[in-house]
Amino acid sequence: MATLGDIAVGAAINILSAFAFFLIFAVLRIQPVNDRVYFPKWYLKGLRSSPLHAGAFISKFVNLDFRSYARFLNWMPAALRMPEPELIDHAGLDSAVYLRIYLIGLKIFTPIACLAFAVMVPVNWTNGTLEHSNLEYSNVDKLSISNIPIGSRRFWTHLVMAYVFTFWTCYILKKEYETVASMRLHFLASEHRRPDQFTVLVRNVPPDPDESVSELVEHFFLVNHPDHYLTHQVVYNANKLSSLVEEKKRLRNWLDFYQLRYSRNQSKRPVLKTGFLGLWGNRVDAIDFYTLKIERLSNETSSEREKISKNPKSIMPAAFVSFKTRWAAAVCAQTQQTRNPTTWLTEWAPEPCDIYWDNLAIPYVSLTIRRLIVAVAFFFLTFFFMIPIAFVQSLANIEGIEKAVPLLKPIIELKFIKSVIQGFLPGIALKIFLIFLPTILMLMSKFEGFSSISTLERRSATRYYIFQFINVFLGSIITGTAFQQLDNFIHQSANEIPKTIGVSIPMKATFFITYIMVDGWAGVAGEILRLKPLIIYHLRNFFLVKTEKDREEAMDPGSLGFNTGEPQIQLYFLLGLVYAVVTPVLLPFIIVFFALAYVVYRHQIINVYNQEYESAAAFWPDIHGRIVTALVVSQLLLMGLLSTKRAAQSTPLLIMLPVLTIWFHMFCKGRYEPAFVTYPLQEAMMKDTLERAREPNLNLKGFLQNAYVHPVFKGGDDDGESDVVSVEDLKEEEPSIVPTKRQSRRNTPLPSKQSGSLAIVDQD
Amino acid sequence: MATLGDIAVGAAINILSAFAFFLIFAVLRIQPVNDRVYFPKWYLKGLRSSPLHAGAFISKFVNLDFRSYARFLNWMPAALRMPEPELIDHAGLDSAVYLRIYLIGLKIFTPIACLAFAVMVPVNWTNGTLEHSNLEYSNVDKLSISNIPIGSRRFWTHLVMAYVFTFWTCYILKKEYETVASMRLHFLASEHRRPDQFTVLVRNVPPDPDESVSELVEHFFLVNHPDHYLTHQVVYNANKLSSLVEEKKRLRNWLDFYQLRYSRNQSKRPVLKTGFLGLWGNRVDAIDFYTLKIERLSNETSSEREKISKNPKSIMPAAFVSFKTRWAAAVCAQTQQTRNPTTWLTEWAPEPCDIYWDNLAIPYVSLTIRRLIVAVAFFFLTFFFMIPIAFVQSLANIEGIEKAVPLLKPIIELKFIKSVIQGFLPGIALKIFLIFLPTILMLMSKFEGFSSISTLERRSATRYYIFQFINVFLGSIITGTAFQQLDNFIHQSANEIPKTIGVSIPMKATFFITYIMVDGWAGVAGEILRLKPLIIYHLRNFFLVKTEKDREEAMDPGSLGFNTGEPQIQLYFLLGLVYAVVTPVLLPFIIVFFALAYVVYRHQIINVYNQEYESAAAFWPDIHGRIVTALVVSQLLLMGLLSTKRAAQSTPLLIMLPVLTIWFHMFCKGRYEPAFVTYPLQEAMMKDTLERAREPNLNLKGFLQNAYVHPVFKGGDDDGESDVVSVEDLKEEEPSIVPTKRQSRRNTPLPSKQSGSLAIVDQD
Repeated sequence: MATLGDIAVGAAINILSAFAFFLIFAVLRIQPVNDRVYFPKWYLKGLRSSPLHAGAFISKFVNLDFRSYARFLNWMPAALRMPEPELIDHAGLDSAVYLRIYLIGLKIFTPIACLAFAVMVPVNWTNGTLEHSNLEYSNVDKLSISNIPIGSRRFWTHLVMAYVFTFWTCYILKKEYETVASMRLHFLASEHRRPDQFTVLVRNVPPDPDESVSELVEHFFLVNHPDHYLTHQVVYNANKLSSLVEEKKRLRNWLDFYQLRYSRNQSKRPVLKTGFLGLWGNRVDAIDFYTLKIERLSNETSSEREKISKNPKSIMPAAFVSFKTRWAAAVCAQTQQTRNPTTWLTEWAPEPCDIYWDNLAIPYVSLTIRRLIVAVAFFFLTFFFMIPIAFVQSLANIEGIEKAVPLLKPIIELKFIKSVIQGFLPGIALKIFLIFLPTILMLMSKFEGFSSISTLERRSATRYYIFQFINVFLGSIITGTAFQQLDNFIHQSANEIPKTIGVSIPMKATFFITYIMVDGWAGVAGEILRLKPLIIYHLRNFFLVKTEKDREEAMDPGSLGFNTGEPQIQLYFLLGLVYAVVTPVLLPFIIVFFALAYVVYRHQIINVYNQEYESAAAFWPDIHGRIVTALVVSQLLLMGLLSTKRAAQSTPLLIMLPVLTIWFHMFCKGRYEPAFVTYPLQEAMMKDTLERAREPNLNLKGFLQNAYVHPVFKGGDDDGESDVVSVEDLKEEEPSIVPTKRQSRRNTPLPSKQSGSLAIVDQD
Repeated sequence: MATLGDIAVGAAINILSAFAFFLIFAVLRIQPVNDRVYFPKWYLKGLRSSPLHAGAFISKFVNLDFRSYARFLNWMPAALRMPEPELIDHAGLDSAVYLRIYLIGLKIFTPIACLAFAVMVPVNWTNGTLEHSNLEYSNVDKLSISNIPIGSRRFWTHLVMAYVFTFWTCYILKKEYETVASMRLHFLASEHRRPDQFTVLVRNVPPDPDESVSELVEHFFLVNHPDHYLTHQVVYNANKLSSLVEEKKRLRNWLDFYQLRYSRNQSKRPVLKTGFLGLWGNRVDAIDFYTLKIERLSNETSSEREKISKNPKSIMPAAFVSFKTRWAAAVCAQTQQTRNPTTWLTEWAPEPCDIYWDNLAIPYVSLTIRRLIVAVAFFFLTFFFMIPIAFVQSLANIEGIEKAVPLLKPIIELKFIKSVIQGFLPGIALKIFLIFLPTILMLMSKFEGFSSISTLERRSATRYYIFQFINVFLGSIITGTAFQQLDNFIHQSANEIPKTIGVSIPMKATFFITYIMVDGWAGVAGEILRLKPLIIYHLRNFFLVKTEKDREEAMDPGSLGFNTGEPQIQLYFLLGLVYAVVTPVLLPFIIVFFALAYVVYRHQIINVYNQEYESAAAFWPDIHGRIVTALVVSQLLLMGLLSTKRAAQSTPLLIMLPVLTIWFHMFCKGRYEPAFVTYPLQEAMMKDTLERAREPNLNLKGFLQNAYVHPVFKGGDDDGESDVVSVEDLKEEEPSIVPTKRQSRRNTPLPSKQSGSLAIVDQD
């Protein structure tokens, strides 16, 4: 049992390690050579094109201004200084609202922690239950609900506090929902003209023997939206083409690598073997080899490109239909078009760069079957993932390896290596699985057939949360695999389950405190170091970078990673709400996590991350829903816990809590959620009217014509010069969109014509 | 334990009683004097204005044509003869589709019964488990699953059959959903022009300090639907006025009564006492008294009418907004109007006669609170309704009555009366509760704030079904009150519950067979007699009827009563599906019920019922959903039953069944449900275009102007002559709507201007 002292030591260690991370970060970040790793966002925004310090050659790589080392924690206030509106302008609404999740954590838990320490710690501490019992206990337990004698009237304090905490949480949640909803609406209202405002994605266009998809779409919308239809773009099945383009990009990297090597050492031309992994085969001149291969691929690409544009079979039964006004697009996206609700499905078109092109052509029946398959697969993944891992673990023991590869036997038998394998191997299978879990979940979502990256990420986040809830939260409280738990729960009565879990909760407080410190504190502090991008950048920089453009490409700012980050935060909400009444001593640890994470992620969002898409905070209903879930779980577990403490007279009052909380959720859902899924006609009409007054001669058709062309067609290739030209033409047409400062082509929250052309950067 | 013989006797008794009902009906219906009770629909349709037989005075009341007595079961083939399209034309789509529910029952259960008798009865019968056991058993049990030894491999038959039955049911359900959806769409497409096609109900118009509700609505829609807005009508709070009108109608009935009495016996003018219930007080001339009172009420009514139209506070924040095209109305009904999703709520306007006027002004927040209250209230009603009834029962015993009214003591102590009270009183409280239950549920739905009668009925039906499922189905299987069951279930594990219920199921087969015969067979046969309307009609006819119009009013055709009838049918689906695998001998009884009910209700729909509203089969998703629920319940119970029979190796296969069934339900929901809740734009556009081509000079504004006026304003009163005139004017404007045969003003499926004017009939 960990005492308060143990925890203090643990905290000290973790604080020190976090501090060490910060120190290393502080040193690394002011080295000019790392500038593109720690400030890529500024490069992408076009506000910085070379490290700030100029001067001697050496100072291009190492910072010699020693005064700057003294101010090594300066980045923290700097990160906090940027006001929210500027942040939204700088990094998009998604990022700004993502930061608010941490803020909500602080807003909810700081007052709760104060109240809990003022009221409940004394109430818990001034009992002697644990002292008089023969149980082993620690000081932490003395501060928790376990210290209160069975049947005591002091439980009323906990009951009242549960009400107070619930009301406070709901109050904050409601206020926050309101704020975020109005931020979203304001953001949408003040946005520049973007193609997705006028465009609707139509899926499942029914086959027609007489007309091509394009004609069919045009006729259908000319008939059914006669005054509003403007233009449309069909969707090509360019999956093969884009894999060719990918391949070409990879080859070009190799060519660059060899060319660079040759230019550094001109004495001999680089050679390579053509066989497997370059280990055997004919020796050829590397530069010639890759030049030839790229040329061949270029031909293949252009013939494939031609095939796609000529062959009607490569047109998928989906199209992007654009309207003359936002009003008409809002109308079309929110209504049903035909009798058959599985054809002519309309929905808002995602931003061009948010589209997941591969999924656009899945028919309705296939979608429902995929949904069933994924649901079943996810169920098995959650509850039975331990089975294959245990199998791998059983294989990966020493005897197994010795049998499989007898050669290694003498090495393995060494005592040191043997103990490493025995201690390390069983864990590594699990670790690898957990590292790949988000990818697996993302693949599931992709298979399910969502058509935009933002939806894919939101869906994966939901699944990841469920997985964590069952396997981390419940799994830590009731030891045993998820499947054993499931089996237990099936064989237990409905009111036994909260009891079983509730009883174990106070005992696991110290474990979760340690978890928060290691995973939360040190993890967040490690995040700021960006170790992986740092290494990769320097490798690429050394081997591949020839021009300034290459260097820009070598930067990997990454993005927030909503699908992994958000479920992580939700776990802390869950822990905080569950332990608020039971063991309030856990709360400060959570508050420190939220504060630290807020500062670190604010810094990263300002300086590093570059969001791929902008969903205008469409994820907020999920966040809200999960915090409410955590609240209900905490109430049920408290009910279970109290019922074992013979405080049964409080049960009816406790039952009211989840009922009220769920009602609160439904109220919020009705009141605020529509702001995140629909687009009110009044807003649309307002923007349309304004625009018509401001720019009566706007050529909207020109603006929309090429917005939804598959990225590989968008002049992504050298030999596609004509396309590039067309994109350039469009740019000239609309100087009004581009603000005064130079905008990088990689940045998302800009008018998406620009972001659409990121393909140009990516593919040559 | 009932043997097969007992059941045969029971069946014989119930068949005979049903036969007796039919016989009495056959005699009563051919008496001309009852013509308006048994054929009101034809009078309302205007196809009949006096009994068919003319001739001598006596034959006006009694049928003397003895040959017609011989053909006493003739109505049955006659009822079946009318083809479905004609039926839809005659009685509306709602009624026609309602009949299809019975047909589905036949379609599902007839093949299932054949298969079950061919396969499962032999499998069950050829075992000796029950014979060799010491248990008491009957022949019925020998035909059921109870007769199979524990752990037998014969359970595979039941498993396979469960799959076959599920697939068959799903197949029928899917086909039927498809048919009904296309019937609905065809019905909507071929409908005459109706005001609700062009109109949207707008609720929660936000208050504005500068503009009246009417101006606000007009400006809002002129701005946000500029090309489509046509006109609007505000909603008045006329609840007080309509109660005044009601009161006046009641007084007029009394006046008619006394006038009729005077005209029959002119020797003395009728008098009455003004005190309580006419028992004491001053004696006054009855005719003068009521004439005076009616006059006073007339003045009050007209002043109230004036007050409403002058006072802006009597305008509710709701309005009916009409558009120039169906397309625009469909758009407005299916989109969100403003940022704030709780104001300017738009939905399809119900038919004018379907509107529940009292609920139109409930604000959004109040709606969500009401929903919470009703949910909690319904929970308590379902699980704790026995508590007040037990309380009443404990009061209503002999000692209680003797204490309360000592005078009655000698009478009560009589042996016969004592036994009647003891045997009868405890049951009567429950009986009264069950009779009033649909009314209570309807009140709940009204309190919840739905704005159309059809939604109210659908909601009540859902609640009634849940109540029946818990209290009749589960309550009969596991004896004990619903609350005791709930308590049991909470204390049982999730996989114990289906076992507990599953085990008792085979034992309750005979009980349910009896229930089906009494409630189903005899109940349906009793329905055709229409005893209550028969008596009331003759009473009214004798005391109140002066003119032909009065007689028309004295008819009470009633309507199908979806909120009570449908849950009843669903109980039979549940029983059939649950027992199909367990005790197939129950199936023929259910088939007889469905066949009988189909014929009887087809007759009633053709000849009697007059639907209040036409929702175009909007209830079908509920029907489908409940049959699927029954299917899943039956699968879970079978799983529970088999797991107690040590046929556990079949469990994984059985688990797949509910998963597949639920997936089937979701598939159907996505595929067909939209047809019942949305109105596809293509359809709307088609009708608009056709109409524009056919009637280019249509005065739509005139058609819609007064469609959504509150019934009490629609010239409902003698002194409202001007209003009557305006309605008459409208009629003349559009001769094209009224088909060649004279259409009664009371009939619903007509263009609703006509049905709106039913107020004229009702209120003078």
